[in-house]
Amino acid sequence: MNDKEELRIIGKPIPRHDAWEKALGLTPYAADFSLPNMLYAKVLRSRHPSANILSIDTRKADRLKGVRAVLTAKDVPRNESVTRFGQTHTVGGGFEGLYRVLADKKVHYMGEADALVAEETEAIAEKAIELIQVEYEPLPGVYDPLEAMKPDAPPVQEGRSNIITHYEVVRGDVNRGFAEAEVIVENTYRVPFVDHAYLEPESGVAWVDENGVITIRVSTQVIEHFRGIADILNLPHNRVRVIGTYVGGGFGGKEDITVEAFLALLTFKTGRPVKLTYTREESILSHSKRHPYVMEYKTGAKRDGRLVALQARLVSDAGAYVYLSPWVLLYSMVDATGPYRIPHVRVDGYTVLTHNTFTSANRGFGAPQVCFAYESQMDELARRLRMDPAEIRKINYLNKGESLATGQVLHHTVALQETTERTVKAFGEKRPSSGTLKMGRGIASGMTSYGRMVFLHDTSRSHVSIEMDGSVIIRAGVQDIGGGQASSLCQIVAEVLGVPLEDIRIYIADTALTPFAGTTTATRQLYMSGNATLMAAQEIKKTLLRKASEMLHLELENLDLVDREVVEKGGEKRLPLKEVIRACASDGLPLYHVALFKAPFRNLAQFERIEGEVFPDFTYGTHGAEVAVDEETGKVQVLKIISCFDVGRAINRLSVEGQMEGGGIYGMGYALTEEVLLKEGITMTPSFSEYLLPTSMDVPSLETILIESGDGVGPFGAKGIGEPSVCSVAPAIANAVFDAIGVRIYDLPLTPEKILKALREKRNG
Amino acid sequence: MNDKEELRIIGKPIPRHDAWEKALGLTPYAADFSLPNMLYAKVLRSRHPSANILSIDTRKADRLKGVRAVLTAKDVPRNESVTRFGQTHTVGGGFEGLYRVLADKKVHYMGEADALVAEETEAIAEKAIELIQVEYEPLPGVYDPLEAMKPDAPPVQEGRSNIITHYEVVRGDVNRGFAEAEVIVENTYRVPFVDHAYLEPESGVAWVDENGVITIRVSTQVIEHFRGIADILNLPHNRVRVIGTYVGGGFGGKEDITVEAFLALLTFKTGRPVKLTYTREESILSHSKRHPYVMEYKTGAKRDGRLVALQARLVSDAGAYVYLSPWVLLYSMVDATGPYRIPHVRVDGYTVLTHNTFTSANRGFGAPQVCFAYESQMDELARRLRMDPAEIRKINYLNKGESLATGQVLHHTVALQETTERTVKAFGEKRPSSGTLKMGRGIASGMTSYGRMVFLHDTSRSHVSIEMDGSVIIRAGVQDIGGGQASSLCQIVAEVLGVPLEDIRIYIADTALTPFAGTTTATRQLYMSGNATLMAAQEIKKTLLRKASEMLHLELENLDLVDREVVEKGGEKRLPLKEVIRACASDGLPLYHVALFKAPFRNLAQFERIEGEVFPDFTYGTHGAEVAVDEETGKVQVLKIISCFDVGRAINRLSVEGQMEGGGIYGMGYALTEEVLLKEGITMTPSFSEYLLPTSMDVPSLETILIESGDGVGPFGAKGIGEPSVCSVAPAIANAVFDAIGVRIYDLPLTPEKILKALREKRNG
Repeated sequence: MNDKEELRIIGKPIPRHDAWEKALGLTPYAADFSLPNMLYAKVLRSRHPSANILSIDTRKADRLKGVRAVLTAKDVPRNESVTRFGQTHTVGGGFEGLYRVLADKKVHYMGEADALVAEETEAIAEKAIELIQVEYEPLPGVYDPLEAMKPDAPPVQEGRSNIITHYEVVRGDVNRGFAEAEVIVENTYRVPFVDHAYLEPESGVAWVDENGVITIRVSTQVIEHFRGIADILNLPHNRVRVIGTYVGGGFGGKEDITVEAFLALLTFKTGRPVKLTYTREESILSHSKRHPYVMEYKTGAKRDGRLVALQARLVSDAGAYVYLSPWVLLYSMVDATGPYRIPHVRVDGYTVLTHNTFTSANRGFGAPQVCFAYESQMDELARRLRMDPAEIRKINYLNKGESLATGQVLHHTVALQETTERTVKAFGEKRPSSGTLKMGRGIASGMTSYGRMVFLHDTSRSHVSIEMDGSVIIRAGVQDIGGGQASSLCQIVAEVLGVPLEDIRIYIADTALTPFAGTTTATRQLYMSGNATLMAAQEIKKTLLRKASEMLHLELENLDLVDREVVEKGGEKRLPLKEVIRACASDGLPLYHVALFKAPFRNLAQFERIEGEVFPDFTYGTHGAEVAVDEETGKVQVLKIISCFDVGRAINRLSVEGQMEGGGIYGMGYALTEEVLLKEGITMTPSFSEYLLPTSMDVPSLETILIESGDGVGPFGAKGIGEPSVCSVAPAIANAVFDAIGVRIYDLPLTPEKILKALREKRNG
Repeated sequence: MNDKEELRIIGKPIPRHDAWEKALGLTPYAADFSLPNMLYAKVLRSRHPSANILSIDTRKADRLKGVRAVLTAKDVPRNESVTRFGQTHTVGGGFEGLYRVLADKKVHYMGEADALVAEETEAIAEKAIELIQVEYEPLPGVYDPLEAMKPDAPPVQEGRSNIITHYEVVRGDVNRGFAEAEVIVENTYRVPFVDHAYLEPESGVAWVDENGVITIRVSTQVIEHFRGIADILNLPHNRVRVIGTYVGGGFGGKEDITVEAFLALLTFKTGRPVKLTYTREESILSHSKRHPYVMEYKTGAKRDGRLVALQARLVSDAGAYVYLSPWVLLYSMVDATGPYRIPHVRVDGYTVLTHNTFTSANRGFGAPQVCFAYESQMDELARRLRMDPAEIRKINYLNKGESLATGQVLHHTVALQETTERTVKAFGEKRPSSGTLKMGRGIASGMTSYGRMVFLHDTSRSHVSIEMDGSVIIRAGVQDIGGGQASSLCQIVAEVLGVPLEDIRIYIADTALTPFAGTTTATRQLYMSGNATLMAAQEIKKTLLRKASEMLHLELENLDLVDREVVEKGGEKRLPLKEVIRACASDGLPLYHVALFKAPFRNLAQFERIEGEVFPDFTYGTHGAEVAVDEETGKVQVLKIISCFDVGRAINRLSVEGQMEGGGIYGMGYALTEEVLLKEGITMTPSFSEYLLPTSMDVPSLETILIESGDGVGPFGAKGIGEPSVCSVAPAIANAVFDAIGVRIYDLPLTPEKILKALREKRNG
């Protein structure tokens, strides 16, 4: 790796290649694309969370003038499908994320898709949906995961236990640990359903190309769903092509299939292009949510603050279908103890089916839930021991070389001492409380993995080529979901090949034409495709320098690529890059390379008890929050969020800071306002009037502090920051609220009602 | 290579993947594609063949309502451009095919583009063209290449000799040769300007994509013109992307840039999509033609038929711009002596600029012209020596291991003895003449190269990948111009990977996304991209079999891929392909490969005297023609064409036969009717009413005889057949006409007028 001092483009705050277009509103998102002769699709959705479908009568809809297609479950070749989490590697053991494309005999949650139409206009499509007559027979449902776990609970999916998975993490002897403990803190935490609330709802356009390939241009994080879509249609995989569009927000909500299967079915049926864009209500009702958790935590420590035992029981509400729930819980299991040295641990985790909206990936993927619990616990321990919250953490942070409760050894720098010190320092002078407005500060730390679980045997490919004039093309299956994934790859190549960024074009996210890069999830693309792209560029550099070495009669190691020239390091000789390219071409040398990057491959011994290496690496950081709590109204105002992370190496400083700032706001919404409220399976918050997102007026002062250890496993030592930047915000805010008003709220979000109630209870002793 | 007996898919007469769509009229050709907000372009073309442009006044056009863009030479960043023949390798020495995008101070031929417009509708565009006022000052021109060669002829391009190139081929001592000769035949042959006359005129649509890349969807044989287009616009090469459409006929006429530069300029200027489709008249007036040649041939032989000397002087009319003329002549030079053993040779060739329509590639690329001459000479020699025309050829055919007059050794089977024997045999019983209707038969042989000249250092790349379900995707920059190029690649991969053809999809011809495959010209794609695709598939096969060998505990060499399974050769063990793929994926093994195939690389010592290896290999074959000539009307009716070729290996028998049949008709048009008549540079035949193509009513009985020596340099020993199938048709017909009526016509086409005149002269002694 180059030394940081030598880097010319890496680490610079460079505007992304798509920044102008986005700022000017010129970027064509999924719904901005149309084709001649296109039909419009609509989905009929169940208003019942649990019911038998006695009959679906489409005759009236079929008779509607201009109606092109009305489809129900019987029209879906393979209606019972699975979300494949391992795209290339399938792991057994009940892990496949069962779901149905269209409800068949039963509906299992409110908003489940029961029928599809494609019509000449949106108005006709809506009319057709209204004319489909479904006879539902409402059934009793189970809406509380703790209830659903009981042996006599009605099964949500027939023939299947509601408990999808039970995992455990065990280290030492937790009973002995608690016996040794001098202080024990025990609490139950709850976190809510959360919507991804992206600006761009689910959307796509599909058509059949001249070779019979079903082509789907869609807003997605996972173009490789082409395989699952082909399976649903019972077609060979190469008959489905997915082209990713610019994504107006994903956050895990576009990790599962959304509109793709519907579009594929309708375009295949009609032979015509079809567009489908969800309404906001439809998006909130029907797509996946972040898992609500009930988390019982018991933490024991010595009087000097040293942790000795942790016991936790996590219950995750999967909603009505499996999807990615088992994996989300697995992330939680690894993270459940936080970045702390604890000799005695027992964690039990359960994922449970209910008749609620199904839950799946959401930024952080199981990490924010447990982080809220373990960091609230740490704060409470500190209060009990009258220790500084930073101090108790610093005593217990793991160091490089130590291992997690799962046994995974941390092979890379753990910079938490530094992130916490710098966060505390960044607070500056404390503002005084005034009247009913109480000021408070809190911190929370987290460890969040980047890259996928090692037993998924993850790989990424990237293709880099240099043209005859020295301009460069990158082709990568990477989907850019707004995180600047594509721009970072351009910077990496520019750095290696010594050309300015404007010489580089990138083509991404086309399953037929770009090499597979895997999902844009799990904060993995900079790590995975970044490394693949680095390798590909290095290979081309090698070819160019070898040829230049012949031409200049200089040793290879004395040459470098700088500013479109081959230059002699510390010498005078130089050659225009173009001349070397021409000489290579004349020799028939490849001026392209497809590199394949492999993450570490390990297999778990078993899935029930989680032991050993699960992730390639973690990103460590600390959030600080400063709040003003109005004791009269219960309203929490966040004044400042400090985000301090070891990002390994900032490839693009602007993008890293953007992620950290965005993560701060995302976490603040989780902490204070965001909740999809379900009452007996019925969504009470189907619009942004009820589901409260932070607005630009709510954005506090944001301070980002980057530490660059250079010790990440990504290119140039980079780590991932997309998801890590979210996880510890909510506990930092909850801890700040406690600091301000002396009460702790154990349920997110920290609504005024809960705060007023807690204050009342405190006053009442 | 597999033995032919073992081949499962190669060699079978399989309908092409695009056959149904084409037959049903569903194939979207270039002009069938439209984009929202698209403009329509038109070109203002000169009606003078030679004139000064005193002024171009676009003010009236600019004032027209709705006018979007009017461009002249001053708007073209690099107006003086070159057709790059070596896409990656540029050869010096005046070989660059100079042309201008838009006429500047002068026009040099009738139909030269002087200005461009892009407007909201075609009607407005036409109106705008009419309103552009160009003041021309007609100048004297030079229209006869022999005149243009004279020292006092006016130069067509200022500061440049009209003689672009003079080459020579010399072997032995031609004077001594003629001194030894016992019979000498000396004649001057002439061949006309010929139009490509494809069904689909030049057409394309261009737009600027969201990343600022000028994207051109165009009917072309050479998508790699993106480089030249970028140069014209003075942009980096990666700012221009060319996507090839299905091509409704190319025949060399879409080898040079046609509409691309105009489209790129207009879309770049307006920021809007632009479509341009030439009218038929425009196509005939303005695009390249086959070179007319004047060929003086003197051939000497011994009384027993052995050739001893050949002297020839070839003068080729390049028209007003260089384009590919020097290369076309180079092909003629190598082929000028035919496939014959001649100890003493001298050939001089000249390419000359005139004020005629420019000439460039046309199916055969310089070979059909000389073949008409040398095969007419052979026939005349046979008549003089009272030998059988087949016999005199068989005495003189070169054998494997012998060398051409250039010194190039023929390393591969020369099957001409067999092709001629089988052709003669195929005639069957001769039909008797009756009344004025005289029957005749003629044969002619040819050797035509496939693959490009070795000093161009030609390469092709191909990307093959196998999906998780065993379906396969090929990505290749190959443009399919109707020869079945894409289907052949599918067959090669199906053969190697043991999957049925329906498991394979191919994506072709996109400079941004498919790996460069080079031009679809020079009968090179089966050879070049076929080999690259074969290599890529073999690499994947190796990966799969290596893994299967582990899984089955069998040696690699005992395994094969058959019918979606890995099978033990001559054994019982088998594994579904899918399982092996899954195991490979789980190991992170690459299930894709980009192969780079390199043709032989040689450099010529010099270009003036052509010596040594010029081509990788040749295709050899014989045409037989049976005609009925009406002595009263002079009309020649072709009753039968026999095409017998050593195709090495027929990858797709239907495609090979299709090429041979099409080549027969193409050559028949050349022989009998096709001629672009220019009078003082003015095109007299600007439509298909004047330019006479063979119609379906004229198609004779066609017999194709395939010999498969397996000794070609293409995949599975294949040779190219696209161009070879044309070359010897015209002389076979001319020889048949002589056989019928005893007169020889030395000028193509063999019109009734020429025949009646020759008969008259014969009668008059």
